[in-house]
Amino acid sequence: MRKITNAAGRVVTSEINGEPVIPFKGIGQHKPEARKYAPPVSSCADYPSDGDKRIGSLALALEKAGLRDGMTISTHHHFRNGDMLANQVFDIAHQMGVKDLRWFPSASFPCHEHLIGYLEDGTIQRIEGSMNGPLGKFVSEGRMTGTGVLRSHGGRYQAIQDGEVKIDISVIGAPTADQFGNANGLEGDSACGLLGFALADSEYAEKVIVVTDHPVEFPCIPWQIQGNHVDYVVEVEKLGDPSKIISGTTQITKSPDRLLLAELTAKFCEAAGIIRDGFSFQSGAGGTSLAVGEYFRKIMIENGIHARFARGGSNKYLVSMLEEGPINNILAGQTFDLDGVRSMANNPGHVWTSPFTSYNYHGKGNFAGLVDVVILGATEVDLEFNANVVTHSDGNLLHGIGG
Amino acid sequence: MRKITNAAGRVVTSEINGEPVIPFKGIGQHKPEARKYAPPVSSCADYPSDGDKRIGSLALALEKAGLRDGMTISTHHHFRNGDMLANQVFDIAHQMGVKDLRWFPSASFPCHEHLIGYLEDGTIQRIEGSMNGPLGKFVSEGRMTGTGVLRSHGGRYQAIQDGEVKIDISVIGAPTADQFGNANGLEGDSACGLLGFALADSEYAEKVIVVTDHPVEFPCIPWQIQGNHVDYVVEVEKLGDPSKIISGTTQITKSPDRLLLAELTAKFCEAAGIIRDGFSFQSGAGGTSLAVGEYFRKIMIENGIHARFARGGSNKYLVSMLEEGPINNILAGQTFDLDGVRSMANNPGHVWTSPFTSYNYHGKGNFAGLVDVVILGATEVDLEFNANVVTHSDGNLLHGIGG
Repeated sequence: MRKITNAAGRVVTSEINGEPVIPFKGIGQHKPEARKYAPPVSSCADYPSDGDKRIGSLALALEKAGLRDGMTISTHHHFRNGDMLANQVFDIAHQMGVKDLRWFPSASFPCHEHLIGYLEDGTIQRIEGSMNGPLGKFVSEGRMTGTGVLRSHGGRYQAIQDGEVKIDISVIGAPTADQFGNANGLEGDSACGLLGFALADSEYAEKVIVVTDHPVEFPCIPWQIQGNHVDYVVEVEKLGDPSKIISGTTQITKSPDRLLLAELTAKFCEAAGIIRDGFSFQSGAGGTSLAVGEYFRKIMIENGIHARFARGGSNKYLVSMLEEGPINNILAGQTFDLDGVRSMANNPGHVWTSPFTSYNYHGKGNFAGLVDVVILGATEVDLEFNANVVTHSDGNLLHGIGG
Repeated sequence: MRKITNAAGRVVTSEINGEPVIPFKGIGQHKPEARKYAPPVSSCADYPSDGDKRIGSLALALEKAGLRDGMTISTHHHFRNGDMLANQVFDIAHQMGVKDLRWFPSASFPCHEHLIGYLEDGTIQRIEGSMNGPLGKFVSEGRMTGTGVLRSHGGRYQAIQDGEVKIDISVIGAPTADQFGNANGLEGDSACGLLGFALADSEYAEKVIVVTDHPVEFPCIPWQIQGNHVDYVVEVEKLGDPSKIISGTTQITKSPDRLLLAELTAKFCEAAGIIRDGFSFQSGAGGTSLAVGEYFRKIMIENGIHARFARGGSNKYLVSMLEEGPINNILAGQTFDLDGVRSMANNPGHVWTSPFTSYNYHGKGNFAGLVDVVILGATEVDLEFNANVVTHSDGNLLHGIGG
């Protein structure tokens, strides 16, 4: 393993977890000369002729899917800190005596603290996916056997599509699903809005298990996850804790300093001619970003300006702008509150997107370049305007930031 | 090239057009041991950073896409006999002096008679896709250089997915599209409903060109074809003849004999307990099949029965059943009239499907098995009940028919 200085001037290793890595070469400098990962061809002959893929339990589904040592198991994070599924998956793996798993979530949360025991006893060798709370602390202290790898949403899609990460079994928690495996996040006790973070997993994993606590008869409409990608369907009592699935972070800041910052930001955008008819914006779900959005709303309504679309995690503020008219469409990657879920279920202008459409840098373009202005609440910004945020591995979303 | 007797007792050749073929082994007997076709990995660095993929003309787009001798060019048939695009593609190829092309439409129609000249002068070596009218006659008379290959809708998706047919350039006529290449068939003068027959082409072709006569600003919602698969967008004056895009075949038969047959069929289904709450049916768009549907409607309304879904090419009869209530959903593969297009644009219960969801035999199941009863108007049926219809290559949709 060699040490290499990458284009950002950082010393990195030539390998991570025994696999070669490509050091950052500069924005747009790495041109892949490869073909996408090719999942196996299936045959309808191997699936029930009546389309009913239900199986008695998650343990049985994992066994049928061939769970064994060293596999990569993926989950999604649409249930945020209310997820009850990932812990069960590794409880079962532990009971089966399986070791050295790679857990590949789109993100993990404090509710997954339970898995520290499995990191310690060797059930899980490493986590690749962002880690919030106790798991992050555990990894930061150097206690995980393998090296943790964090990817942006788009970088994760790209890694799966390109075959950098081969998923053996994808376990998809589905707030609503039919017996064929068609699924969405719009209805049921665990409604989380959309399932876009599981899209790549459903398309490229060797085996796909859909787990639902709200089964419906075929056809489950709309099918955010298509049953034609799904091997097994499992019905459980409860997938998650609804009060924690819906994030509590979507409140406008009450801090007078931050409100002033937000107002000045909106006024700058107005003066710079960014807020014009047909423009678009992306806004974070933090308190300051939300406040900027509210100042945008005032300016738009006063001047009769319509935005073609707003991009982002959707919440009651964006939804009210969609319903009142100043926004034509919301292109949503996540929904952060129940208003977001309700709107996505009922309003065709509230569109569910995925990392494929939005951020995958190894695609034929993506939506990131089509957003006129991104409102990003950074926790610290230095005097050279280097925003102190986690940068994205594909170098795409955040270009334009930096001093 | 050898001659082989296949499982259906037919003598077939070991090769077609110089490529090896797998003889039919019996329903469900052929298990693919392969991986899906892997299209190239793209990079956003090669696409406009503002997402605007428009290019001046179709000729320029074909040139940029690298059109040259021997390539495979695909088109879709959602414009039916009103298509004006395929002829233009080969006019350009002819002007460029390109030879030996394989045309891979999802179907061709009498409006493509114009292409006979190109079959004769070597611009097009062969057609793979169903041929209606003059092209069919030309091929049946043995005048095409290559051998024509007809595939079912599902068989075509499978052939693309599995890499049996590699598409070099897919040209997708889009009734509505934005500058990024997101497209749908729901609005505009050439509205045809959906674009499902072009789905595989958009996913697997090396280069994808979207051509529209109704450009809209990003985002074109819904995106039936995703711009993230698209290389170039071309704006033209006119894609098709609306009066011919919408088929004139969707009228209930007036023949007393056929009406009696339809009534008896519906009564049989009622007596056999097939028409029960929560059932599903698929109906052709021929006059007799439509009449069966109307008798179904009467039985359902009289008895307060709801169908979970109806599957098929959608038309005013199915749409009125969706709107009046006895059908909960239409899972549509095509729309055959303007009521179908309007309903698909406005009613979330009128779902656009694709050959991937519906008929691909090399998938993890498909919807064909979930339909309780298929109403098929056969032109002739012999005394052993062998329906005289074109059979499907994947042996899936039509199993159950035969004496």
